Amino acid sequence: MYSSEIQLRVRYAETDQMGYVYHGNYAAYFEVARTEAFRQLGIRYKDLEADGVGMPVGELRTCFRRPARYDDLLTIKLLLRQPAEGARVLFEYEIRNEAQELLAEGHTLMVFVSTATGRPVSIPADIVAKLAPYF
Amino acid sequence: MYSSEIQLRVRYAETDQMGYVYHGNYAAYFEVARTEAFRQLGIRYKDLEADGVGMPVGELRTCFRRPARYDDLLTIKLLLRQPAEGARVLFEYEIRNEAQELLAEGHTLMVFVSTATGRPVSIPADIVAKLAPYF
Amino acid sequence: MYSSEIQLRVRYAETDQMGYVYHGNYAAYFEVARTEAFRQLGIRYKDLEADGVGMPVGELRTCFRRPARYDDLLTIKLLLRQPAEGARVLFEYEIRNEAQELLAEGHTLMVFVSTATGRPVSIPADIVAKLAPYF
Amino acid sequence: MYSSEIQLRVRYAETDQMGYVYHGNYAAYFEVARTEAFRQLGIRYKDLEADGVGMPVGELRTCFRRPARYDDLLTIKLLLRQPAEGARVLFEYEIRNEAQELLAEGHTLMVFVSTATGRPVSIPADIVAKLAPYF
Repeated sequence: MYSSEIQLRVRYAETDQMGYVYHGNYAAYFEVARTEAFRQLGIRYKDLEADGVGMPVGELRTCFRRPARYDDLLTIKLLLRQPAEGARVLFEYEIRNEAQELLAEGHTLMVFVSTATGRPVSIPADIVAKLAPYF
Repeated sequence: MYSSEIQLRVRYAETDQMGYVYHGNYAAYFEVARTEAFRQLGIRYKDLEADGVGMPVGELRTCFRRPARYDDLLTIKLLLRQPAEGARVLFEYEIRNEAQELLAEGHTLMVFVSTATGRPVSIPADIVAKLAPYF
Repeated sequence: MYSSEIQLRVRYAETDQMGYVYHGNYAAYFEVARTEAFRQLGIRYKDLEADGVGMPVGELRTCFRRPARYDDLLTIKLLLRQPAEGARVLFEYEIRNEAQELLAEGHTLMVFVSTATGRPVSIPADIVAKLAPYF
Repeated sequence: MYSSEIQLRVRYAETDQMGYVYHGNYAAYFEVARTEAFRQLGIRYKDLEADGVGMPVGELRTCFRRPARYDDLLTIKLLLRQPAEGARVLFEYEIRNEAQELLAEGHTLMVFVSTATGRPVSIPADIVAKLAPYF
């Protein structure tokens, strides 16, 4: 299993009039966790795209347990439970606040595609190799 | 079954550098469909909140089939397949472009809560009554 | 002078915990007004970009008079007070609620650029011609 | 003069199809700089609001010099050139990338208000005192 963690602080812009983080904004929190997980593995996602490989989201699921609020310092844990293979990777996420309360959990199913054609392609060998030691 | 449809046009602000609507923005599209479905039923969601009842999202799931793009005129269909009861309602959604291609489908599980306490409450009787004829 | 108006309804996603529309979101409201003003003139902004001409924002200014709130039906008036010439166009905006109260006013200075080089280019002749009758 | 700096990394969610950070998103970058400047002074903006004092934006101005892009590590410098007095404070900002290129500069005029009445109030004495040594 591969896992990594990041921290980020909730912005005022991300709240809604209920005083909660608007639920649609968790997708961007998950995205930050992915970008930084790649960076920790020595991969820059922007280089992937420059090399003609994109990674759009095929499916997003989020379960909201407790509200996140303005100025909360969130910890976002990213998990890959299975080795990457084919064109798809399932990333799982858990979001906790400073009191270690679970605020949300979810997953995204990512699909590697050619940015030129939009068609699925195999996960780049470089990524497979960097993830292999964790499984 | 209750269903309703709205149309909205994709804003430039909602795109990302892949040239797609950023996946996190679909949550707001679903929200617009809910607000307008309530309005068609004669209910203003803002009045609900003013009366002390909120409706946060307990779960969000979105499956992305084809990208939506800037200036696309989207049709968002909202479906309630089962009568509302207890504190939860499952809304389902389908998003199509002008060529009637299915771009995305998903659901949100909404939880009625007291805005004072944050605790679940039963669906307001007014909403139950207005939905009853559809089931 | 050229002017046009659009209406749009405030989304929950656009509010913040103060119960106001988050001030950063007015930029997208102005953008919708521009896209629709172009459409009324018979120009689709997305076609401009497909033809290699972009129109990034060089300067944004917004004065916030009264808060816009969730579910408000806003009228956004766009004004061009001077004929377009060179590479720049100044769009002015006024936002009013249903009670015709002025909520915000502002401007954006747009710069026509080549999407290939990022360098300023003259306003496309087609746009100049379509605006000419208004001045 | 008071000044402070923060760094933040551009999210994919913040880009648009031109490949730039959408111009409306700079408002949130400025907001993060304000929140952290307050924190460095020993003030938590959320405590201010809890104490009944809000700080909405009265005016926003941003000049965009060069585009910010996905994954750029931005430095946002906040400046207060004059001592805070009355109900208003002018914050100025400069955004640079890792090559120290100036990408954008701007200001926000903030208005201290009572969250109960929405009316302007004097800057809290605590803030005045904490800023005084810098002027």
